[in-house]
Amino acid sequence: MSTRTHIDRHYEEELQELRHLLLEMGGLVEQQIADAMRSLVERDDEFARLVIERDHTVNRMDVQIDDLCLRLLALHQPAARDLRLITTALKITTDLERAGDMAENICERAIELCREPQLKPLIDLPRMAAIAQGMLRQALDAFVREDVELALQVCHQDDAVDQLTDQVMRELLTFMLEDPHTISRALRLIFIAKYLERLADHATNIAEMVIFMVKGKSIRHMDRPPATL
Amino acid sequence: MSTRTHIDRHYEEELQELRHLLLEMGGLVEQQIADAMRSLVERDDEFARLVIERDHTVNRMDVQIDDLCLRLLALHQPAARDLRLITTALKITTDLERAGDMAENICERAIELCREPQLKPLIDLPRMAAIAQGMLRQALDAFVREDVELALQVCHQDDAVDQLTDQVMRELLTFMLEDPHTISRALRLIFIAKYLERLADHATNIAEMVIFMVKGKSIRHMDRPPATL
Repeated sequence: MSTRTHIDRHYEEELQELRHLLLEMGGLVEQQIADAMRSLVERDDEFARLVIERDHTVNRMDVQIDDLCLRLLALHQPAARDLRLITTALKITTDLERAGDMAENICERAIELCREPQLKPLIDLPRMAAIAQGMLRQALDAFVREDVELALQVCHQDDAVDQLTDQVMRELLTFMLEDPHTISRALRLIFIAKYLERLADHATNIAEMVIFMVKGKSIRHMDRPPATL
Repeated sequence: MSTRTHIDRHYEEELQELRHLLLEMGGLVEQQIADAMRSLVERDDEFARLVIERDHTVNRMDVQIDDLCLRLLALHQPAARDLRLITTALKITTDLERAGDMAENICERAIELCREPQLKPLIDLPRMAAIAQGMLRQALDAFVREDVELALQVCHQDDAVDQLTDQVMRELLTFMLEDPHTISRALRLIFIAKYLERLADHATNIAEMVIFMVKGKSIRHMDRPPATL
């Protein structure tokens, strides 16, 4: 086996490792969001604290993926498609790390909400979380498979999350207007809706980067995503 | 002049252009935030619409800087320090683009607020905006000058913004509790405080990246920034 082939094989393995690490980090973030929502719905402040503590595992992967990207760029001087793959990974890891921060923020509000009686059973927020988690998973699958159609699907779901945010806001506003005692609790739930909206935004950002990576064409700054590419 | 020297000179010029473009983009974002705040304080919804329309200039620079970074990586295969400079620029431009989105969000709330009587004269929000804008400018200066001390100063100011956000929230909460008619307006002002908090977060993120770029050491995931490095 020539040295060149040996290097190439190693390089391919490292690219594969990069894809794998991003999926793993995405899985971690998804779990963090799921657990944050569980701590909120079940009003379990101890569990919420545990989830906050676990955020460092997401952060550690962020650093690890950045390191791998820099190593790949320095050692293998990739061109064209691979270069776009690696620079996209560099950007995606930042979005994932901040998506993880949303779980932490949800937990902080959940802990505060545990100190007061429950305002209402939560229905729309868990639905929003489920959609946003699905978007995140699909965006990362789209990255790994370089699947533009799947990435576009993610972008199209963003509107649904925005609409749910509006709906949640309106409902909580009626609580606040009817009884000022509910204001601080309703406000915390509104913040949680906003965190989930941002989570969906991160997934959308990742999907847009995947489209750029594959097509070399940016849809980031269009008013709305195109139906097809 | 040898070809090598010629390429190197061109390369240095392109790195310089990269620094220049990031400063220019930062200046644009700063102006967008300043204008957004002016539209809010002066209750000028027409001006707010103008600022929203101008967001595309920020987005265009985002694409332009990404392109330059990819070209530099592909053509010059930079190592070590330059590689970190370029990959940091790639990440910074994303933060700047989203910082620009904060101006857009402020304008949207400003337009809504124009439809109702003024709730209160705004004092803390413009102060928060001024601090956050200063942080953004300093973070980009720190990038261009590779100045770790300045970057650290940015990180240390983040707490001041968080405290102002709390203060604004508390004050607006008293309005809401005293008179339910103020709720929707107070809520919009609370959102604006949150946008400014996020703007300061973007500046802090950039500063942290600069520290990593220069020191090769990440302070991103410490509970609080160290006094010195």
